[in-house]
Amino acid sequence: MAEHREQGQEPGGRRRRCRRLEGEAARSVLGAADTLLFDCDGVLWRGEAALGGAAAALCRLSAAGKRLCYVTNNSSRTRQAYCDKLRRLGFPPAEPRHVFGSAHCAARFLRQALPPGAAAYVLGGPALAAELREAGVPHLPPGPAALPGPAPADWARAPLEPAVGAVLVGFDEHFSYAKLCQALRYLLRGPDCLLVATNRDHRLPLEGGAAIPGTGCLVKAVETAAEREAFIVGKPNRYMFDCVASEFDIDPARTIMVGDRLDTDILMGNTCGLTTLLTLTGVTTLEEVKGHEESDCPARQSLVPDYYVDSIADLLPALED
Amino acid sequence: MAEHREQGQEPGGRRRRCRRLEGEAARSVLGAADTLLFDCDGVLWRGEAALGGAAAALCRLSAAGKRLCYVTNNSSRTRQAYCDKLRRLGFPPAEPRHVFGSAHCAARFLRQALPPGAAAYVLGGPALAAELREAGVPHLPPGPAALPGPAPADWARAPLEPAVGAVLVGFDEHFSYAKLCQALRYLLRGPDCLLVATNRDHRLPLEGGAAIPGTGCLVKAVETAAEREAFIVGKPNRYMFDCVASEFDIDPARTIMVGDRLDTDILMGNTCGLTTLLTLTGVTTLEEVKGHEESDCPARQSLVPDYYVDSIADLLPALED
Repeated sequence: MAEHREQGQEPGGRRRRCRRLEGEAARSVLGAADTLLFDCDGVLWRGEAALGGAAAALCRLSAAGKRLCYVTNNSSRTRQAYCDKLRRLGFPPAEPRHVFGSAHCAARFLRQALPPGAAAYVLGGPALAAELREAGVPHLPPGPAALPGPAPADWARAPLEPAVGAVLVGFDEHFSYAKLCQALRYLLRGPDCLLVATNRDHRLPLEGGAAIPGTGCLVKAVETAAEREAFIVGKPNRYMFDCVASEFDIDPARTIMVGDRLDTDILMGNTCGLTTLLTLTGVTTLEEVKGHEESDCPARQSLVPDYYVDSIADLLPALED
Repeated sequence: MAEHREQGQEPGGRRRRCRRLEGEAARSVLGAADTLLFDCDGVLWRGEAALGGAAAALCRLSAAGKRLCYVTNNSSRTRQAYCDKLRRLGFPPAEPRHVFGSAHCAARFLRQALPPGAAAYVLGGPALAAELREAGVPHLPPGPAALPGPAPADWARAPLEPAVGAVLVGFDEHFSYAKLCQALRYLLRGPDCLLVATNRDHRLPLEGGAAIPGTGCLVKAVETAAEREAFIVGKPNRYMFDCVASEFDIDPARTIMVGDRLDTDILMGNTCGLTTLLTLTGVTTLEEVKGHEESDCPARQSLVPDYYVDSIADLLPALED
């Protein structure tokens, strides 16, 4: 298993190399691991369809006594919704405490960071609000908002909730100039008003090559107005891994991060000293990996996974008795 | 007058120095100029109130035969609206052709850049639409937009206008996730779909220290989704000056740019080889100028104006007969 090392560099300054995980190496790597962290979309399923062999592979890993956790930047579903989906698609049963979505992690962060009684102004949907409620973080209700009058002077006079001590940005289909305005006004109260976001994903890929704007677009809008940087709880930030490690007894050297994105899943895994495994069922091609491998740039080297598979179904042979 | 020079550097590598414009120097600098370009808000007026002495100073400049033009990043007013406001506040009469707002300049850019029959998808308000109409650029009507269904798959299937060949981002109080989604879908058609924006201002300052988010926030959201950079027509981009120079016979060495913002007005003026004059009636303090003066960073040196005045009323003594 990978030892903890400097980001993007093998010990002794050797370059990272990404090898196909198969045969004896696959048995050895999986045998040495006690925990696997899975990204979900593009790894376990696409939309509502499980990827072929993924459920079988996870069932075997679970039967072999591995701890399975789920780490996802998606802020539009609760932990419970992920458990329901895993069950629905035939994956081994999971409890909410095994699911680390960016909505849950953001609520967890704010529970620790906000002073008692302080509330969050939320750009986000019902799942984000539900996780805040679950964590006991007071918050303004999400949903659409209208500008409070025809002129800019009216917008700057709309009521503000005195208790707000943080602006939280997640995926928000009701994002609007009116909400951006309110977010800025809370943040202009001063640096004590925290700016927290679930993730920086630029786009959400849909079936058939289509895509819709991701939370990262909304985060950039708020950061530009506020002229400061948000704290990001999602991958590639290590906060999401720290959440896992604070719930379970995690040894990074015995943990595998499995994902389809280099700049989130693999980067977080490499940063945290995990073994990293890329699946090619999502948004990444092997050509991109090769490009990073051949680069001298440390930032690009840190995107190179330890291993890759075409699909996590490829792990099945190594999991046979 | 300033000769054309490398951005941010005096000839021979000397640092830029910003001097108060007064006395004999003021007579000499103003005497040698034949054109003055004025930013408006924070320079000529604040909101609906003219700054003391500003109208009188411009009347004297006009009487002395100087050409007065107005260059503003504000995309929410037409050229005609600026002429009306100048007249209302007692400034010398101006014709629309003397006003270079970012809405007009964006329309001008698209008229040149779009192939015949191509239309613009507009994030902006009525003034931006009016300038596009005036320039003969086909465009979709601005205004609010709703998501076309409950699920992301619905959003990615909403009708697109086949003629759209550009996304234009200006100030848009109806900016929403729904419009961001449509903008991305047009831009995903390929690099032939242009991405153009009026300006990158982060915030619009209001009376009493309040502020609302500026167009730059919306531009960042679209750029993040599209994963490409917009062409910016407004200051500090030189395109706005090029618009002035294509309408009038402009000698940069005989032109003064007067503004209150270092990163837009002064930077554009310095970039274009104009003499630059900062007024302290807007968003900038002399301390900021001193900080840039003392910096060795070329980017910061390029923000140092040639001259400053507390207010353009300070020009009055140099304009007496």
